[in-house]
Amino acid sequence: MNFASDNVVGASRQVLDALIAANTGTEGAYGADSQTHRAEESLKRVFEHDLAAYFVATGTAANALALAALTPPWGAVFCHQESHVIDDECGAPEMFSGGAKLVGIPGVAGKITPEAFRKALARFPRGVAKSVQPAGLSISQVTEAGTIYSLEEIRALADMAHAAGIAVHLDGARFANAMVSLGCTPAEMTWKAGVDIVSFGATKNGCLAAEAVLFFDTQASASFMYQRKRSGHTISKGRLLGAQIVGYLENDHWIDNARNANASARKLADGLGATTGVVLPWPVQANEVFAFLPARMAEALTAAGFRFAPWSSDALPAGLEPSPDQRFVRFVTSFQSRAEDIDALLAALRKS
Amino acid sequence: MNFASDNVVGASRQVLDALIAANTGTEGAYGADSQTHRAEESLKRVFEHDLAAYFVATGTAANALALAALTPPWGAVFCHQESHVIDDECGAPEMFSGGAKLVGIPGVAGKITPEAFRKALARFPRGVAKSVQPAGLSISQVTEAGTIYSLEEIRALADMAHAAGIAVHLDGARFANAMVSLGCTPAEMTWKAGVDIVSFGATKNGCLAAEAVLFFDTQASASFMYQRKRSGHTISKGRLLGAQIVGYLENDHWIDNARNANASARKLADGLGATTGVVLPWPVQANEVFAFLPARMAEALTAAGFRFAPWSSDALPAGLEPSPDQRFVRFVTSFQSRAEDIDALLAALRKS
Amino acid sequence: MNFASDNVVGASRQVLDALIAANTGTEGAYGADSQTHRAEESLKRVFEHDLAAYFVATGTAANALALAALTPPWGAVFCHQESHVIDDECGAPEMFSGGAKLVGIPGVAGKITPEAFRKALARFPRGVAKSVQPAGLSISQVTEAGTIYSLEEIRALADMAHAAGIAVHLDGARFANAMVSLGCTPAEMTWKAGVDIVSFGATKNGCLAAEAVLFFDTQASASFMYQRKRSGHTISKGRLLGAQIVGYLENDHWIDNARNANASARKLADGLGATTGVVLPWPVQANEVFAFLPARMAEALTAAGFRFAPWSSDALPAGLEPSPDQRFVRFVTSFQSRAEDIDALLAALRKS
Amino acid sequence: MNFASDNVVGASRQVLDALIAANTGTEGAYGADSQTHRAEESLKRVFEHDLAAYFVATGTAANALALAALTPPWGAVFCHQESHVIDDECGAPEMFSGGAKLVGIPGVAGKITPEAFRKALARFPRGVAKSVQPAGLSISQVTEAGTIYSLEEIRALADMAHAAGIAVHLDGARFANAMVSLGCTPAEMTWKAGVDIVSFGATKNGCLAAEAVLFFDTQASASFMYQRKRSGHTISKGRLLGAQIVGYLENDHWIDNARNANASARKLADGLGATTGVVLPWPVQANEVFAFLPARMAEALTAAGFRFAPWSSDALPAGLEPSPDQRFVRFVTSFQSRAEDIDALLAALRKS
Repeated sequence: MNFASDNVVGASRQVLDALIAANTGTEGAYGADSQTHRAEESLKRVFEHDLAAYFVATGTAANALALAALTPPWGAVFCHQESHVIDDECGAPEMFSGGAKLVGIPGVAGKITPEAFRKALARFPRGVAKSVQPAGLSISQVTEAGTIYSLEEIRALADMAHAAGIAVHLDGARFANAMVSLGCTPAEMTWKAGVDIVSFGATKNGCLAAEAVLFFDTQASASFMYQRKRSGHTISKGRLLGAQIVGYLENDHWIDNARNANASARKLADGLGATTGVVLPWPVQANEVFAFLPARMAEALTAAGFRFAPWSSDALPAGLEPSPDQRFVRFVTSFQSRAEDIDALLAALRKS
Repeated sequence: MNFASDNVVGASRQVLDALIAANTGTEGAYGADSQTHRAEESLKRVFEHDLAAYFVATGTAANALALAALTPPWGAVFCHQESHVIDDECGAPEMFSGGAKLVGIPGVAGKITPEAFRKALARFPRGVAKSVQPAGLSISQVTEAGTIYSLEEIRALADMAHAAGIAVHLDGARFANAMVSLGCTPAEMTWKAGVDIVSFGATKNGCLAAEAVLFFDTQASASFMYQRKRSGHTISKGRLLGAQIVGYLENDHWIDNARNANASARKLADGLGATTGVVLPWPVQANEVFAFLPARMAEALTAAGFRFAPWSSDALPAGLEPSPDQRFVRFVTSFQSRAEDIDALLAALRKS
Repeated sequence: MNFASDNVVGASRQVLDALIAANTGTEGAYGADSQTHRAEESLKRVFEHDLAAYFVATGTAANALALAALTPPWGAVFCHQESHVIDDECGAPEMFSGGAKLVGIPGVAGKITPEAFRKALARFPRGVAKSVQPAGLSISQVTEAGTIYSLEEIRALADMAHAAGIAVHLDGARFANAMVSLGCTPAEMTWKAGVDIVSFGATKNGCLAAEAVLFFDTQASASFMYQRKRSGHTISKGRLLGAQIVGYLENDHWIDNARNANASARKLADGLGATTGVVLPWPVQANEVFAFLPARMAEALTAAGFRFAPWSSDALPAGLEPSPDQRFVRFVTSFQSRAEDIDALLAALRKS
Repeated sequence: MNFASDNVVGASRQVLDALIAANTGTEGAYGADSQTHRAEESLKRVFEHDLAAYFVATGTAANALALAALTPPWGAVFCHQESHVIDDECGAPEMFSGGAKLVGIPGVAGKITPEAFRKALARFPRGVAKSVQPAGLSISQVTEAGTIYSLEEIRALADMAHAAGIAVHLDGARFANAMVSLGCTPAEMTWKAGVDIVSFGATKNGCLAAEAVLFFDTQASASFMYQRKRSGHTISKGRLLGAQIVGYLENDHWIDNARNANASARKLADGLGATTGVVLPWPVQANEVFAFLPARMAEALTAAGFRFAPWSSDALPAGLEPSPDQRFVRFVTSFQSRAEDIDALLAALRKS
């Protein structure tokens, strides 16, 4: 059983069927196709707001393009110091923005606090040409620690950002998992909370390769089509992306998928939490479970064929650290995870 | 009937089936999957050479990444002045290379002659810091005029490039169409003729979104994986790209596809050529037919529901130009084109 | 005698004296000094207009920063195909702009005609994401052929640019020489003729290293101070640049300097024009003289210790080209050129 | 009296005289002049090593070009989290390198410890395309806290860097002050300690605008001349930079200058240290004195016409922080500082 990530599985059946159905007939190229149009309309409906939606095939592209849309090359984008945009995109935001600076903010459990954000902002005075200029705030929802910002927390950070004259981006690689966890609507988690631009992830939760960059202020995206094209992210047969999103959103399929992933993680977390010697350093709020496992348990799981990822972080709660005979690991569940898979893992664990 | 481009259709059945078959089960992410591996092995076999293959979803990405691999930011890449990399990628090569200069070389029918290449090279003396430094030659095969370089022509340009110490890139967005037209092997059209890096296009000829950048000198691609990742072109569910390429290459499917497209274009060109008042400015050698149509014919075709693209070019033969009552247009055929579609178009034309 | 360029001499005495005088005492850093302030005020007075002036040490910096201020990374800047920004800055405009495209326009004697500009504009349709977007026009005054746009010619191009929604930059590396040649005011040659941004060159005409980027719309330069700083062109001891400009402008020193350079070139051109076998391909309108010299004359001059630059160009009048036994060369005169130097050169020529 | 920085004064008399002497006669342009040549030879002698020297007018240019020479766009350069390259250059290293990432390492008193460097290196595994790749280490000598690395400390960091396969840059904006403080030779503080590339600052210690980038491995600088040119930092009248460096190095002038600056800082630090209520948070080792001043003292000094800079830092020793009624400030002394100026400041302080 592979819990290494939620990108180890293919597409869900509904998404694949939408792709197959969209394959016939001729369509306009570069996004001028009916599937792209339908996907845009679906997103407007789902988000209860006018918006500009740009589809791309990867989360790195979505994030890097979104950040490039809100910062000049001499700008600073504030984000958690272990955020995906800093650690896992090989410098894509710097490339797309022409060299802007990502300013990493420390924070327990992957979350930025208002105090930490205020302190970071203070380091970049406006109008002094020696330092880069505040340009954006990027938060991850779900965070890199598998945790979730409450709507109030998002609002507080967004208000501070807007007061400082900068826009707010939400990296929603696991958007649906966060939303299901909060029990809120897409609108509540974004524009109603002050978010300006969203990387709306769909790949991890049921698609093969489909993400959308959403602007609630459509004017703000005026040059986005050029940025997307010159970065090679304008797909010629646009139906590929459009159809996936159409299939993903239809009949709340995406919500069902996320519910399954989250419930699986909950079940796994409960099992792990009840196991002597296992420590869960952060609350499990979406579809990721981080744990300190006794080394022999980790080895036994690996030997039994289970896959999961080694982890490390500077965002652990004060005083908490894996001991030398513990392994810090991450398990990720997906829309395909089954109760019996979790049971099998827990059984293997207890046997060890 | 839509002859606007070869990207107005979906995937071929064989490619789609490969994609569907590859959807089940878990796989490693970011290219560490079995489909990507199979695709790489297929390409080595097809090209009869060891090679490094990097899969991406768009031709713009393939070209821009390939060019960025052969030029420093202060380099010059020589290419035809109407090449796709200059005119149709919104500055992607400049973005990916960090600002390198594309030097456009004029030439009839989309082709660079050795004389013109020599003259362009002379403008960029080595070791003089005032001008950018020669770094690469990029030729398109099929060209933007729908024409084809002979193997001898490729060899002559490649020899000149290598003598000048620069590498050769082949933009093969329509690779298969060119190869079928020449009746040669992939090896003959590439490394045997002196080509170092290939953008191997598959999207237009049967895939949904799949291109490969091929390096015959695998050492030369050492940093490519970082360049691809930071440009957002490393697909997490790599099976999407790998499976398409596997399906595309299997049982000479790609060659059959290209044969159909080329034969359709041949049939169309023959019909047009036999029509009074129609001028074909360039030889039809692949799956694109460029024509000067009497305005009333163009209007009649449009009225009858046929789609094709308006065109313009500085690469027309000396003295040849569309008159005010002619329309310069492009028809593109594809792997899906049917004889009856061509017949219908020609019939509509003659009726006009 | 060195006629290779106008940058082979040092500073004029008046400029040097201003620098020496400004050396004592403490001053604010990074442009917050009294010399920089005085220089700005002088420029406002000289140009009879409010303006924002940014001082830098090199012409390449001035041009690249100016172009970066008027184009996004996905923009096209139109300029003569042999302009300094294309041929002699090793890709600086591409670097500073984040990869914008310089579109070279052909034109006899280094000048862009309205017809050629119109044709170039037409190649870049607005709002179509496949190609870069029109962003600016950059003209050189003096041109690379040593010729001068009339005020009417500048106005015609500027009107076309503004009608196309793009701004106009004037590369004035030899601003004073052009102005003296036209017998006009700084205002007439710039904002009154439709120029928006000027690279105001002073190095070649009397300074050691001092150029200014001028914006007549001060709002348009809002982010310039960040662009200058991040490109390393904000001098800490700003008095270095400010004092040179102060000394340069005082008492019409710059105009006197340019008059001497132009008169010297005139005298040289007259002498060359009266010499059998010498051809002057372009009109001599400022301080540069281009000539086809019989090879033996060129060799005799070199042997006699005269320095001048070999040249080549695609901007020669139709049908005019150096024959195999002619040498295409450039002579540049400066504020330091003396009548006896010209006489000596002409004497050596006649002796040969 | 202005203690705000060491860039508030002009050039020293010896440097200015060298500049004046070099002003006459004609010289080759763009670095092909006799002054540039003499400066290079002087540096080879002073550093007791063959080297490639590139002169530029600003420290930001020197640093950004040096870093761009050692990192690809997908590289990580490790440096102190409050280093000048991170905080004070408005993103120049990111611009010049095409988007490389500066990784800030925390450390008391502006210094990186081997432990902290090891931890930072561990975050960027080699060969994993998700994160940028280790490419360089940049240390500042003098640091941003006015402190100095011992030769052993430099060697320890350089050895770690080389073991990790990355090169070492030394930001020597105050090179001479550090060297005088250590009582060592230029060679001992650089190549003998493992430093590969040096930003050799001269502006703050006696020049008007002159810095040199030094490569001890001349091969490593092969493309530097293109990077310098395309960033606009190749001065046409190269004598401006060359002559300053010649005058700066002659007869140990630069060492005398640094000795005066350091002795002045020592005198100031002693006086401040003996003043009740004043805290010096870091050891004073060069020409910068950081202090917590009682607010009323700071105000009295300002009222008396003394200039100094407000400061803030995360690199204070554990537990040490300015209290609400203290002001954290920086005083910088220079080659022009006089004993009576320090006495006057201390007298003003005691009176308050």
